[in-house]
Amino acid sequence: MNTWNTKAANALRALREKRPLVLSLTNSVVQPLTANLLLAVGAVPAMLNDGSEAEDMIRACANALLINVGTLSQEQAAAMRQGIRAAGAAGVPWVLDPVAVGLLSFRTGFCRELLELNPPALIRGNASEIMALAGEDAATRGPESNHGGVSALAPAKRLARQTGAAVLVTGAVDYATDGETVIAISNGHELMTRVTGVGCSMGALAGAVLAISPDSLSAAVSTAVIMGLAGEQAAARAPLPGSFAVALLDAFASLTPEETERNANLRTSGI
Amino acid sequence: MNTWNTKAANALRALREKRPLVLSLTNSVVQPLTANLLLAVGAVPAMLNDGSEAEDMIRACANALLINVGTLSQEQAAAMRQGIRAAGAAGVPWVLDPVAVGLLSFRTGFCRELLELNPPALIRGNASEIMALAGEDAATRGPESNHGGVSALAPAKRLARQTGAAVLVTGAVDYATDGETVIAISNGHELMTRVTGVGCSMGALAGAVLAISPDSLSAAVSTAVIMGLAGEQAAARAPLPGSFAVALLDAFASLTPEETERNANLRTSGI
Amino acid sequence: MNTWNTKAANALRALREKRPLVLSLTNSVVQPLTANLLLAVGAVPAMLNDGSEAEDMIRACANALLINVGTLSQEQAAAMRQGIRAAGAAGVPWVLDPVAVGLLSFRTGFCRELLELNPPALIRGNASEIMALAGEDAATRGPESNHGGVSALAPAKRLARQTGAAVLVTGAVDYATDGETVIAISNGHELMTRVTGVGCSMGALAGAVLAISPDSLSAAVSTAVIMGLAGEQAAARAPLPGSFAVALLDAFASLTPEETERNANLRTSGI
Repeated sequence: MNTWNTKAANALRALREKRPLVLSLTNSVVQPLTANLLLAVGAVPAMLNDGSEAEDMIRACANALLINVGTLSQEQAAAMRQGIRAAGAAGVPWVLDPVAVGLLSFRTGFCRELLELNPPALIRGNASEIMALAGEDAATRGPESNHGGVSALAPAKRLARQTGAAVLVTGAVDYATDGETVIAISNGHELMTRVTGVGCSMGALAGAVLAISPDSLSAAVSTAVIMGLAGEQAAARAPLPGSFAVALLDAFASLTPEETERNANLRTSGI
Repeated sequence: MNTWNTKAANALRALREKRPLVLSLTNSVVQPLTANLLLAVGAVPAMLNDGSEAEDMIRACANALLINVGTLSQEQAAAMRQGIRAAGAAGVPWVLDPVAVGLLSFRTGFCRELLELNPPALIRGNASEIMALAGEDAATRGPESNHGGVSALAPAKRLARQTGAAVLVTGAVDYATDGETVIAISNGHELMTRVTGVGCSMGALAGAVLAISPDSLSAAVSTAVIMGLAGEQAAARAPLPGSFAVALLDAFASLTPEETERNANLRTSGI
Repeated sequence: MNTWNTKAANALRALREKRPLVLSLTNSVVQPLTANLLLAVGAVPAMLNDGSEAEDMIRACANALLINVGTLSQEQAAAMRQGIRAAGAAGVPWVLDPVAVGLLSFRTGFCRELLELNPPALIRGNASEIMALAGEDAATRGPESNHGGVSALAPAKRLARQTGAAVLVTGAVDYATDGETVIAISNGHELMTRVTGVGCSMGALAGAVLAISPDSLSAAVSTAVIMGLAGEQAAARAPLPGSFAVALLDAFASLTPEETERNANLRTSGI
């Protein structure tokens, strides 16, 4: 059996060969970075607003769907429902990014509704968001989590068992779980929190990885590894946030499967 | 008579002197790059959402209008109709970018409706989009074309004759036609496909060029030349997509009319 | 009493310690730069579309609110009204950026309505926008002002007295006034006008400064100083607009309070 390191390296290799198309119904702030990150790593981005078009694209050619509720509106919520139903019918995996769930009630109710409608293959959030989505009483502060990842592990495992999704809790250390196994990924760099949309783009990357690697836990781990290693390479080139953002996209294009295998910093968590 | 090379150089010179204002009703993913590219090359960007404001701005000061349907919604479609009618009344030229037409039915019907409402001065798309808009049965895959430009030449010429617009088919080689003459432009670089919005920004640049050069075929050729040369200069400075995007904006500011005249790679196509 | 230089340095220091959260209901073109600028300087950005969510966030954790009407829609106008009412109830200061007011009638009427609803703590605009908001008959041309800042000083002072807001008129020289005192700030660089969203981001920065420095005139002056000095540092590193935009974000992270105190270029205006 491959180690998680090897799986992450294989995921990056397969992603560049197969170039999956990820339809991202995502927040308006992060659209440019999300699309550019997918292009840089070797995938194909698509974004749109209309629900009927989401259906068309999922039927025609989307390999994965990202739902990110960062700038949710009633109109976008309707389009997202249509997209998720079409993804269910077409067998297209989808990723939920519950941005600021727990803090804002409209999106909190909406994300819980989505979990009932057609469970996602993968959920990515910070500790506060995952705790809130799992039903814990946790306050968040905008895009920043007040909670360390460890405090979210029990809720994350419960959420994974309830939904069947892999749950990726991101923070200084990322944790991926399928409800039983927990993998801790210690790649990444603090500068990733100084650029808007890096976390949100991780959801789109997860969609690309899921499209070529249907095992959700493996996809969650590989996503965190690839993201973290690109962040490390970028931080080594650029110590300030503007040039770091540029270097991050460069790193997504230049990161090799060999570097991924060698530098992934993983352990099975005892929790 | 000036050669196409000289016309492109003159277009760049005139654009920087006259600083045309291009109102871009465009998709949300590419708004920042589109606005920054117009500013870098020397034009003035304007963007808005409300239909009555589109009318106000076209009457007051817009020199060209771009319609890009990449993230079309019912609300935006209504604003675009208002903008196109106002452009017709004011004699302001407009550019159509039929993103993903042929793949998604809402926008396909909408773009055909627009062609009847008030024909554009210029249409820019990849081969699949142009073929679909011309009524061919052509599948597209999101922002990527499955077709080489040559296969779109006969449909492009027919579309140009039907609408009176110059048609610019973009790809590894760009083709501009007025329905009779076909000019092939071989400038550009593959990295331009690794940055979201480069193609979409070309439509806005076409608007700026049209505003100072009312001959549509000449505007289409000059747009492809300026875009391609900026891409070549950027690729010479930056081999990875994040830094390439930055270098591309720098190149739009630093490209000279003399370089444009000297390095334009043009031929009249025999097709 | 501290000089304005010292106040600007103290504002930057306090901003990095307290990390205020600025909820920006702003135009879609400038969202990425606005969020990245706030992150770079040390503040926390939040953006959303839904009015009920704006209320939730203002009650829960927002320290300031920016209203920028650059891509106003009927839906966004409704959300902005909800946000401004909630800000009034919660004692959260808000900033108005009246983009293209005077040119476009929908937003002109809307901004005047907002001034009645709950007066802002600070208004930032170019000379044409401030003159129009103050009721002068002034034409604007999209994001560019046709008027030098000096011609807007009398209208700016009147607007400040009418609303109780500090008014910041931005241009080659920036002017801040509370209706009595006028401070001229001569920091900045011409390249700031070649990157979309720099002016709009200034409104968000003003919100961050207001959140830690409740004196509005002082906040207006400090905002102009910090913005201008970051622009000067960036221009010294990067002479072309693409790399300038990157260097600008870097400069917001690296600018020190000591540099701010030393290099602020301020004078009390005799007008």
